[in-house]
Amino acid sequence: MNTSNNVNGTATSDVLTSPFIKALVQQIRGLDTYGTYRKWSDDLILKPYIVSKQKKREISVEGDVNPMTISRINAFYRAIAIRIEQETGLLSQVVADLNHEGFGWMLVFSGHLLLVKKTLRDVHRFGFNSWEKLAEEGETLVQKGVELARRFPEVGKL
Amino acid sequence: MNTSNNVNGTATSDVLTSPFIKALVQQIRGLDTYGTYRKWSDDLILKPYIVSKQKKREISVEGDVNPMTISRINAFYRAIAIRIEQETGLLSQVVADLNHEGFGWMLVFSGHLLLVKKTLRDVHRFGFNSWEKLAEEGETLVQKGVELARRFPEVGKL
Repeated sequence: MNTSNNVNGTATSDVLTSPFIKALVQQIRGLDTYGTYRKWSDDLILKPYIVSKQKKREISVEGDVNPMTISRINAFYRAIAIRIEQETGLLSQVVADLNHEGFGWMLVFSGHLLLVKKTLRDVHRFGFNSWEKLAEEGETLVQKGVELARRFPEVGKL
Repeated sequence: MNTSNNVNGTATSDVLTSPFIKALVQQIRGLDTYGTYRKWSDDLILKPYIVSKQKKREISVEGDVNPMTISRINAFYRAIAIRIEQETGLLSQVVADLNHEGFGWMLVFSGHLLLVKKTLRDVHRFGFNSWEKLAEEGETLVQKGVELARRFPEVGKL
């Protein structure tokens, strides 16, 4: 598989039909109050999540984080929360604590159980090197969360 | 006990020597980089935490939350985290997700265990009706956190 092709290329149908990517698209379409994305394909909507290493270097980490980037990060973690809910039935909350320097926490929790806890750095440059990486990182966080939910059901339901 | 006296009066030594209040004072003195509070008494430092019901009504919930209020809220929850650490040995993190409308979450967690989770409303008006209420609410949150930490040690150490 040619990674550099993936960075600029289109997403494979394998990726686009994966449960995490479908949940992510659903998140973004759900927030699309004005119907901006109504006629956009899924890969066009998700394209801003794909940021090559070179592109990342070009994004300055000075100043406030772009609100669109923040909203992409939120959608990514809400999609994880939705996927964990689908697998375990646990309703969860997403909490973001990102400071102006682009550093902070993203948390997903249910009851008193933290299903996902992630520190982020250089939030300005949030993105994935390829479609596969995007799907993979989402799915990995989902699986870890599901595992915790199954291991400590009592805490998740508190 | 006369509550209205407490609102405007001074703190009793019982309150000021309680472990939670001592931790709170320590938090604020620890952040006092320029030594502003060096010669202030503990009750003078904590005075802004005491907000009468009438005073609360006078504080507008329009516009951004005063940064001093945010910093008081953070110190309050960090003091809770410190007290839980003293009781259980668990190091914990404080995460704040407060929006511009004065609504949000305050979380204290250790490992994958949420020791404190609290939704806040009208953050602009954060404060307690009396010194006793301040100490009591802090101590209650500490005790709940300690109880959770003891009940689910495995999750707290994950």
